[in-house]
Amino acid sequence: MQLTAFTDYTLRTLIYLAIEEGRRATIAEIAEAYGIAENHLTKVVLLLGQAGDVETLRGRGGGLRLARPASEISIGTVVRRTEPGMALAPCLGTGDCVITPACGLRPVLAEALDAFLAVLDRYTLADLVGRSRGGLARLLGLPAPAA
Amino acid sequence: MQLTAFTDYTLRTLIYLAIEEGRRATIAEIAEAYGIAENHLTKVVLLLGQAGDVETLRGRGGGLRLARPASEISIGTVVRRTEPGMALAPCLGTGDCVITPACGLRPVLAEALDAFLAVLDRYTLADLVGRSRGGLARLLGLPAPAA
Repeated sequence: MQLTAFTDYTLRTLIYLAIEEGRRATIAEIAEAYGIAENHLTKVVLLLGQAGDVETLRGRGGGLRLARPASEISIGTVVRRTEPGMALAPCLGTGDCVITPACGLRPVLAEALDAFLAVLDRYTLADLVGRSRGGLARLLGLPAPAA
Repeated sequence: MQLTAFTDYTLRTLIYLAIEEGRRATIAEIAEAYGIAENHLTKVVLLLGQAGDVETLRGRGGGLRLARPASEISIGTVVRRTEPGMALAPCLGTGDCVITPACGLRPVLAEALDAFLAVLDRYTLADLVGRSRGGLARLLGLPAPAA
C-alpha cells in the first residue's frame, strides 16, 4: 500500500514552503533540494495553486510561497485531493470484481480508509514542521529559519 | 493509495474458499470465476499455504481448501503479510527522502497506518462472507452453499 508519488511530492513541497512561511522559493530550488525532477513538481505546484494552498508571485523577487498559514492546511484535505478515489481495491474504484455486489470486504476497506483519513485530518502542515524547522532547514540546505 | 494486486487476489481467493468451507477448489476454477490469470494465483496460493491458511490436497478429489476456520483468519494479519513494509511513502520504506530524520510527516503516516490496520484486525474472513454466502456463490457460479 503506497501513496502516489504525486502525494509524496505535494507533501514535500508544502513542508519546504512551511519551514519559513514568508520566504519565497522556486520550483527548481525545491526539486534540487529533494533530488526530484523539476517537471514532476510543476504539476504539483499548479494543483497546490488551484487549491489555494500556494501562490506564485511573478517578476523579480517572485517565486512560490504558502497562500495561507500552515496551521490552516489540513493534511487529510491535501491527501484526499491528491489521491483521487483512494481506490484501495478494484471494488472501491472501477468496480471490476465480479463479487462486488455481495462482498463483505468493501465496507471493511471503506471503514479502514476512514480511520486512516481521520488521523490525517487531525494534523495540519504546521504540525509537520512545528518542532523541527531548524533540522528541516539544515537537511534541505536552507538558511536557518527566524525564531 | 492502493493495495497491491497481490493483496487483492489473496483476499479474493480466501473469500472464494470461505463460501463453503469444506468444498475443494482448483486454482483454475478460482482464476476463471474472477477473470484473473491463473499464473497470478499460483504464488498467492503458495503463500497462503505457507501461512497455514490454505491446504492443497493432492491426487483424485484433491484441490485447495481452507486449512482452518474462516473465523480464525484475521484480515489484518493477511494484509500485513501481503503488503510487506506497508511503505506508504519513501520515509516508511527505503527512506530515500533527505528530510526523513527531521520530518513530522513520518510519525503521522505511521499513526494513520496503525488506525487502518486496527480496523482490519477487527474482522475475520468469516465476517467478509458471513451474511452473503448465497449471493457470493451465485456471482461466482458456485453451487448454493449448504445452510
